[in-house]
Amino acid sequence: MSEKSPTASRGGVLEAAAAARRAAVPLATLSGADKDAALEAVADALLARSGEILQANRRDVEAALAAGKPESVLDRLRMDEAGIAGVAATVRQVAALPDPVGETTYSSVLPNGLDVRRIRVPLGVIAFVYEGRPNATADAAALCLKSGNAVLLRGSSVARATDSALIAVIRGALAGTAVPVDAVQRVPGDDRSSVWELMTARGLVDLLIPRGGTGLIRTVVEGATVPVLETGIGNCHVYVDEDADPAMALSVLLNSKAQRPSTCNAAESLLVHAKIADTFLPAALAALREAGVTVHGDARVAGYDRAVVPATEEDWAAEYLSPDISAAVVDSLDDAVAHIRRYGSGHTESVVTRSAAAAERFTSLVDSAVVAVNVSTRYVDGGEMGLGAEVGISTQKVHARGPIALAELTTAKYVLTGDGHIRGAAPAAPGLSCDALSGG
Amino acid sequence: MSEKSPTASRGGVLEAAAAARRAAVPLATLSGADKDAALEAVADALLARSGEILQANRRDVEAALAAGKPESVLDRLRMDEAGIAGVAATVRQVAALPDPVGETTYSSVLPNGLDVRRIRVPLGVIAFVYEGRPNATADAAALCLKSGNAVLLRGSSVARATDSALIAVIRGALAGTAVPVDAVQRVPGDDRSSVWELMTARGLVDLLIPRGGTGLIRTVVEGATVPVLETGIGNCHVYVDEDADPAMALSVLLNSKAQRPSTCNAAESLLVHAKIADTFLPAALAALREAGVTVHGDARVAGYDRAVVPATEEDWAAEYLSPDISAAVVDSLDDAVAHIRRYGSGHTESVVTRSAAAAERFTSLVDSAVVAVNVSTRYVDGGEMGLGAEVGISTQKVHARGPIALAELTTAKYVLTGDGHIRGAAPAAPGLSCDALSGG
Repeated sequence: MSEKSPTASRGGVLEAAAAARRAAVPLATLSGADKDAALEAVADALLARSGEILQANRRDVEAALAAGKPESVLDRLRMDEAGIAGVAATVRQVAALPDPVGETTYSSVLPNGLDVRRIRVPLGVIAFVYEGRPNATADAAALCLKSGNAVLLRGSSVARATDSALIAVIRGALAGTAVPVDAVQRVPGDDRSSVWELMTARGLVDLLIPRGGTGLIRTVVEGATVPVLETGIGNCHVYVDEDADPAMALSVLLNSKAQRPSTCNAAESLLVHAKIADTFLPAALAALREAGVTVHGDARVAGYDRAVVPATEEDWAAEYLSPDISAAVVDSLDDAVAHIRRYGSGHTESVVTRSAAAAERFTSLVDSAVVAVNVSTRYVDGGEMGLGAEVGISTQKVHARGPIALAELTTAKYVLTGDGHIRGAAPAAPGLSCDALSGG
Repeated sequence: MSEKSPTASRGGVLEAAAAARRAAVPLATLSGADKDAALEAVADALLARSGEILQANRRDVEAALAAGKPESVLDRLRMDEAGIAGVAATVRQVAALPDPVGETTYSSVLPNGLDVRRIRVPLGVIAFVYEGRPNATADAAALCLKSGNAVLLRGSSVARATDSALIAVIRGALAGTAVPVDAVQRVPGDDRSSVWELMTARGLVDLLIPRGGTGLIRTVVEGATVPVLETGIGNCHVYVDEDADPAMALSVLLNSKAQRPSTCNAAESLLVHAKIADTFLPAALAALREAGVTVHGDARVAGYDRAVVPATEEDWAAEYLSPDISAAVVDSLDDAVAHIRRYGSGHTESVVTRSAAAAERFTSLVDSAVVAVNVSTRYVDGGEMGLGAEVGISTQKVHARGPIALAELTTAKYVLTGDGHIRGAAPAAPGLSCDALSGG
């Protein structure tokens, strides 16, 4: 809590964080109307100044081409007028959401007249470290401002010019609004040391959200001294129970795997109950092949189709993000649960079954952010789940688990109101409060 | 999420953690009745076997005396029959609380028929690192078991024999119940290396709660790679506004400071609006002196009383936990807020005022876990706030802020139920979901 005076940092990271922290103070108590007006101004400016954003984007794309970056990187990087219109529309949709700040999440008046309330307040300063996909820049800024937080944006060097242009446009728009301009900051520096400075900026950064590959997330989780919200590593499973409707199972499997294989909520592993394997697997393996999916199977799966590639230990743990899936036959629902417990990433697992008892046992035993019954894993998305825009899927258990929507970007403040309430000499209520601890 | 196979650890810490993780699996889905029956058995056993616990405690007390430990340490350490009866009563009170596990915290059926529910589930394995106060051992065990979590207890070496006896009694009682015995584990080893092993046991420890001095908490926060919940550093302020009722202000101040100075929710700093200083301070300083409190004041406070000790920069940031208080005169409510923002620990700040506008401004601008209006800071305690037994006061913003009661020892699981729901080719809802990120 105590303000940290920024010691000079090599690239100015701590100075940017300190400016964000100063901006966060007035931002935290702005009205919803003021924040929404600022977001509308940002959306207007993105459209009005699309030319300079696209010009910057062309420079990034040309540099990436010259550097021989793969087509997948270029795909993410490229923007056009329609892309900017989409970003502006998202900013307006965030503006239209209810303001999470100030919401009362608990209230009670005790017999002694003490009024106890808990209200939602912003976290303060949120830092994002993410990949070279420019729409993430505006989306993250919009969600943080809406929830009353200042934001530090640290994108990829591959999108440096585009991100700089976007942030210049956003800050330009904020200059005419009640939101302080410094509430949106680009983190200077593209090398690893700037990430390190963010990770250890205790007192300046209230939450760090890394978005990207396993390597980045592991580095951040292991090295950070500021609070971290892990997102999105998804080794998602589809389990076809003995009581599944085979046609529904095939439809859910194909949608989970093949509708968009590059997403964190795409299925990466198929588990089939032995009693339904003869019925289900021949058609399923043919349909996966038809959809261009390579199956990495155990010996029992391989017995059904010669195109199956033998699965290795690495396959069971893999998040392919590609048209590949691992597959195994299991002898029971409990064996499926044990497999998921061993190899899963805690993101999403789906069971297909007509048995209410099997569905109940699976949802009870599987310890993941989301458990789905007769639903494609692809539904695990804040919008599809009716929770509004989100910044990712949390696969950790503390603070937020599942979609990280506006409420998850806030914290709580208790407000006690009395009329001179003082405590008597009576012993404290039971528990480990610091009273019990400190004695006296 | 993936299970971590414990590499052999020097003192067996990881083996204990792995045993706790195995026990956490069946514990997570036990009924409330089964957990409550186990807690009643624990309470019975504590009373029935009080003799061996007290004998062990005498050994610890004698060793502490021989080592020349200060009286405050001995005070915390000593147990007697009444103390054990109190611990058993607390365990029964925890059993009587409602089961937090399984509670539905969100539910919605979307227009397309998708059923979305969020339910409370246990975190898994919780580790406590705490001081030499034996009742904390039983209290933490009871709260963790009630919330469906296995617990790793790492007390102080000064209480080694007592803690071992208590944990042996608890485990003995669990042997006859549905709760696995290994759900309560004493962490072997008393040196710093055992804390380090706990701090870095990713995949085995879901939440680490350090309870103790600033040094311990800083070490844990900076070195841990498992999630941490900071507790209890309280540099709490009482601000006497220009519109305060002076009698109420004096009563709230004395109670906040002197009712139990060794607790985290005791006031450590007094701020007085300049316009009420002449009215309030002479009587307040006399009353504090009368109560045995030393005032460390700024020059303006010192002008009212020759007994005031000049305050240093360290005083403003100090958590004395003793009959000392820092005191300053401020020229406005906003100056009081700025002082708190600079020096506070984010625990609790109390304003005394008759002005609704001043109360509203203070509660809005102060960024602490609890803000109190015309209430002694000593009310900040789960029991006093009507939230039930707690394991401490969180001063961090993520996961839990304020009293850490049973709900704060749980996480969420989303359950999606459909009838073969698959996603179409329509674009994803706006936001930064991994869809937006990964492209495709």
